[in-house]
Amino acid sequence: MELIDGKYVADTIKKEIAQTVAQMVAEGKKRPHLAAILVGHDGGSETYVAHKVKACEQCGFESTLIRYESDVTEAELLKTIEDLNNDASVDGFIVQLPLPKHISEQKIIEAIDYKKDVDGFHPINVGRMSIGLPCYLSATPAGILELLARYNIPTKGANCVVLGRSNIVGKPVASLMMQKNNPGDATVTVCHSSTKNLKEICANADIIIAALGSPGFVKADMVMPGAVIIDVGTTRVPDSTRKSGFRLCGDVDFENVAPKCSFITPVPGGVGPMTIVSLMKNTLLAAQHVVY
Amino acid sequence: MELIDGKYVADTIKKEIAQTVAQMVAEGKKRPHLAAILVGHDGGSETYVAHKVKACEQCGFESTLIRYESDVTEAELLKTIEDLNNDASVDGFIVQLPLPKHISEQKIIEAIDYKKDVDGFHPINVGRMSIGLPCYLSATPAGILELLARYNIPTKGANCVVLGRSNIVGKPVASLMMQKNNPGDATVTVCHSSTKNLKEICANADIIIAALGSPGFVKADMVMPGAVIIDVGTTRVPDSTRKSGFRLCGDVDFENVAPKCSFITPVPGGVGPMTIVSLMKNTLLAAQHVVY
Repeated sequence: MELIDGKYVADTIKKEIAQTVAQMVAEGKKRPHLAAILVGHDGGSETYVAHKVKACEQCGFESTLIRYESDVTEAELLKTIEDLNNDASVDGFIVQLPLPKHISEQKIIEAIDYKKDVDGFHPINVGRMSIGLPCYLSATPAGILELLARYNIPTKGANCVVLGRSNIVGKPVASLMMQKNNPGDATVTVCHSSTKNLKEICANADIIIAALGSPGFVKADMVMPGAVIIDVGTTRVPDSTRKSGFRLCGDVDFENVAPKCSFITPVPGGVGPMTIVSLMKNTLLAAQHVVY
Repeated sequence: MELIDGKYVADTIKKEIAQTVAQMVAEGKKRPHLAAILVGHDGGSETYVAHKVKACEQCGFESTLIRYESDVTEAELLKTIEDLNNDASVDGFIVQLPLPKHISEQKIIEAIDYKKDVDGFHPINVGRMSIGLPCYLSATPAGILELLARYNIPTKGANCVVLGRSNIVGKPVASLMMQKNNPGDATVTVCHSSTKNLKEICANADIIIAALGSPGFVKADMVMPGAVIIDVGTTRVPDSTRKSGFRLCGDVDFENVAPKCSFITPVPGGVGPMTIVSLMKNTLLAAQHVVY
């Protein structure tokens, strides 16, 4: 069994990006510039945005953080998005989700110019990904494919089972895994709450991508010997022994599943660190004007 | 075994649409108006467009056919699309594919205002479908779901195997069948040229949607007794006994597969007649301003 070290891969890619940026700057080009809009003071959102700002520094990007209190109106937010759409100095930007209930997340996402939508949430980017056109891939699915690529895990013709059909992980990663690319070209099955013979389906999978948000859901008897397990789950489980009061728990019963696998991602330290790197890669693409 | 009569369902839906249109007109609203752009004189395209114009008449729609010779420039075509985008009298329009090689089909598709893209080919509509937002569904996938609905075929939790991963059938029908809707909510597996254990996968399917374009590919030993078979294949096979010189051949070995099924679509007369009806439904939606 080999552990897939997402932290190591993420650090490697950030260094690669920093090298590319250094070369761009040496050629007289401007540094890639990511802007982030953060509304309110949600603990998780604060942490994520802080990590993104730090990753920008590591990659040699310029970053701008725009903060609003949680009583900001939808109209104010839309105005800021319009300004960022028109600001040539900003290559890409994100609006950290979730947003307060009085603001329509979908309206906000669709207001972003898809050419600057480095989160890859705009329907145009989702559609372009499905069709196979140049686009910003959403962070978690892109991070999963990057891990498979860096560990040279064969995917062509593999039976890949995706657990979960969310818009931000399950559906897009299924879409990417079935494309005629490498990684990709897999036979993909998407399972969810209505799936009947889940255990049997999983037990025939060469690759399982678990994105249910259900701690320890994937048990050893659901896994074929030698399978590759990608665990996307990050549920906060109360843990009084931790300073934070919780620990992150994956969708896989790691202790019992890991010994059966050829490759497995830990939680934390597997898929998690890759998501921010995907955002950095998209911002670099935006600065290079690769998506049009 | 029950034969799914696509022609009958299509005729029924056209009558339903005509009733709705009659009511709209009685309320003083304008008739839905579909425009079609046809480039050149390809035999297949001529036939399809003629059928679409006829379907418009049956539904009580206004229709406009804009013809160009095959030497039309991309710029001329883009100008016409811009005019149609801005023409409030036109609710929706299509550009009949394929186009001559000197014109980028993707560029043409993306030039269409997605609110008038009743073919559902624009990346925004593809993405909106995947996310589950109001959109124009592309014709064949929508027609398949309509058939499943009209024959009350249960799909929730069913193992649905999609053969083929094309952008116009395989991928979108897979996306629709996995959504938490009815029809939908199925466990979907997408198979293609790189799939290894295809026979075994098919033999476990409650529903097979065959969209490979490979005549007679699905054999009886690949089908579970009682399965539902949707045959999307329409390959032209030379046939000297026909006036046209060819016959349409599905992806399913109908003669041997049909006796094993609970439901099966014939070719022709199954999925085929439904595609034009889907276009009519989208045009009605466009006139009702349901997609925004």
